[in-house]
Amino acid sequence: MALVVQKYGGTSVGNLDKIANVAKRVILTKAEGNDVVVVLSAMSGETDRLIQLAQKAAEEPDPREYDSLISTGEQVTVTLLAILLNRMGCPAKSFLGFQVRVRTDQAFKKARIVDVDTDAIRAELKKGVIVVVAGFQGVDPENNITTLGRGGSDTSAVALAAALKADVCDIYTDVDGVYTTDPNICSNARRLSRITYDEMLEMARAGAKVLQPRSVELAKKFNVPVCVKSSFTNEGGTLVTREEMDMDMEKEVVAGVTYDRDQAKITVIHVPDRPGVAARLFTPLSQHNIIVDMIIQNASIQGHTDLTFTVSRKDIREATRIISQVVQEVGAEKLEVDDNVAKVSIIGVGMISHAGVAALMFETLAREGINIMMISTSEIKVSCVVEAKYTELAVTVLHDAFGLGKEN
Amino acid sequence: MALVVQKYGGTSVGNLDKIANVAKRVILTKAEGNDVVVVLSAMSGETDRLIQLAQKAAEEPDPREYDSLISTGEQVTVTLLAILLNRMGCPAKSFLGFQVRVRTDQAFKKARIVDVDTDAIRAELKKGVIVVVAGFQGVDPENNITTLGRGGSDTSAVALAAALKADVCDIYTDVDGVYTTDPNICSNARRLSRITYDEMLEMARAGAKVLQPRSVELAKKFNVPVCVKSSFTNEGGTLVTREEMDMDMEKEVVAGVTYDRDQAKITVIHVPDRPGVAARLFTPLSQHNIIVDMIIQNASIQGHTDLTFTVSRKDIREATRIISQVVQEVGAEKLEVDDNVAKVSIIGVGMISHAGVAALMFETLAREGINIMMISTSEIKVSCVVEAKYTELAVTVLHDAFGLGKEN
Repeated sequence: MALVVQKYGGTSVGNLDKIANVAKRVILTKAEGNDVVVVLSAMSGETDRLIQLAQKAAEEPDPREYDSLISTGEQVTVTLLAILLNRMGCPAKSFLGFQVRVRTDQAFKKARIVDVDTDAIRAELKKGVIVVVAGFQGVDPENNITTLGRGGSDTSAVALAAALKADVCDIYTDVDGVYTTDPNICSNARRLSRITYDEMLEMARAGAKVLQPRSVELAKKFNVPVCVKSSFTNEGGTLVTREEMDMDMEKEVVAGVTYDRDQAKITVIHVPDRPGVAARLFTPLSQHNIIVDMIIQNASIQGHTDLTFTVSRKDIREATRIISQVVQEVGAEKLEVDDNVAKVSIIGVGMISHAGVAALMFETLAREGINIMMISTSEIKVSCVVEAKYTELAVTVLHDAFGLGKEN
Repeated sequence: MALVVQKYGGTSVGNLDKIANVAKRVILTKAEGNDVVVVLSAMSGETDRLIQLAQKAAEEPDPREYDSLISTGEQVTVTLLAILLNRMGCPAKSFLGFQVRVRTDQAFKKARIVDVDTDAIRAELKKGVIVVVAGFQGVDPENNITTLGRGGSDTSAVALAAALKADVCDIYTDVDGVYTTDPNICSNARRLSRITYDEMLEMARAGAKVLQPRSVELAKKFNVPVCVKSSFTNEGGTLVTREEMDMDMEKEVVAGVTYDRDQAKITVIHVPDRPGVAARLFTPLSQHNIIVDMIIQNASIQGHTDLTFTVSRKDIREATRIISQVVQEVGAEKLEVDDNVAKVSIIGVGMISHAGVAALMFETLAREGINIMMISTSEIKVSCVVEAKYTELAVTVLHDAFGLGKEN
């Protein structure tokens, strides 16, 4: 008998019929002799509807109230699933963040889970009850409702699986696994049967939408096996685990190609090149919870340099406002903003032991006349910022160059 | 400086524009130097939408899940009002049942408030914050969300006013006060400027929809002055208070005429007339939380009698099922059900000291050929069950007979 955590995303619970399908899947898993904890998102579109309502009420809604408002979406799906399961003769009980308790910090709209109390859930599982937990939400120490940010339900599921020491955390979504790249761009993209946490993490960070990066980090930290599956078919699935010795000896060097259009590039021109200037620029950004992705600094000429960095497009207005202020303070010349860019990345643990991977990437892009504006590398990833219009072309040629496509 | 509790019903918060109007009213009250606690219902129609969703999921949804589901309606309105108030520069904070805490028993769908913790609210009021509380909901000792039954937000408001020792509890609704009868039936119905708790209670019980009877009981118990007002005009209002010595010397004998179409009549034919039979019939009904309104027992003939009683129409199926069982056990002959009836009542504290009130009611109905099926009386009320089709006629002739109409 295993303890299984299953998470279903918004499209899997988009209406009552779909929730009934989820119920059948849950009952099947239970009937196989497992203890089952289900984590749900809101119905697809519902969170957006609530966000729009909040933004119609105020351009910048009070974050505490905002979180309490948008957390109702998950409250609706978990209670409906519990109602359906009970009707189908399967005792089930829904838990909201404050009922579990999923304790978080006080960073409304992007709260982080501090810990998860498992007593109440364990007591129900012991009685044979299926536990249905609202994803995306928690409570801070003052009993305020918090939410975990977009895709937070993945994080909820993995955190629960870790706290409960579950045997597996199944993430049901509208695709049947993790692909070598976006099948909408490359029709010969191939589903990966297995991928390491690190690769998954880099893919998620680099723009693959399958799993929220935080959930993968958490899974890696607590060694929770995560399986990405489709809630509409019984086929496929990609297992995300740690790297095992016996893992595909002949694994490809590169596991996947990703892209991210949610990128904006800011360049600070003619910055005095003295100690502390970078901190002056980036500290206020992090204080405003703006995540800076890539940073490039040119070689210094006559005590001055140019500094380029990328942020998420949604943060561009606030980032520009903050940096404009600092530009004056540090005596830089001016600011240039370009949101017509995209990031294309190749990812794979095999890179560590293979030379020439980055070189092949640059050559491949150059051959197509695609100019590389910024480069960043990690042990298992190379990312390039290019003009947005080249996104599909870059992905396609890289996918081919690294031999990732299905064999015909 | 007074402490004012204001409750706004579903039509007053039916959309964002209407909630913005509520915000203006609240700010005005605050600007007059008052501490303000606002209690809200869900947007009109929203609770019904959620109930339908639950009933599409299961004919008899699990009550714990049902309550958690339908409580989301108030969560949306209170957070939106708090967002609007904050945007308008007025610090405000929403509280859900579990955050206040509004402690209730475990009777899902019709929970009763056990007590209200006022510490958190008082702390916010002290800071000058407007407190916005979700009506209709509470939590039981196990942290399950409970709801108080239809119109429960009135009860929430009065309970809060009592716990906070508020100076007044304003109930904002879509009518501008309590009328001598339904103005839709009698165009010359008159708004009452003042009414006693007991009269209001009888009127609410007898079918007037303005206030939930439980909220009036609670107001009477804790002597909370309740003012019924319209959220769309600044005129009118009816104050519900205890009976004062100086209260209108020349008050009419009858304060109002009400009717209730939500009535069904069950007759148990040929019941053996021995001790304990009534208990055998009515105990299981009360155990199933079915409220029996009127009861009539005919004079016994040859050791047998007929027993007639009324219940709410929504309970008729369950009541019939329960009573059918008991009919066999006690050896009665059969059961007759009639849901084509209505209850018409006259109410007024003046009745206590005036003879002939009931007689005038019976004569008035008889003159119109309206047959009275059942009669029940209290110190300040006479109710008659009549055929449903006579409802409007009965109300109109009684309103005239007791001189309740506006003078032309």
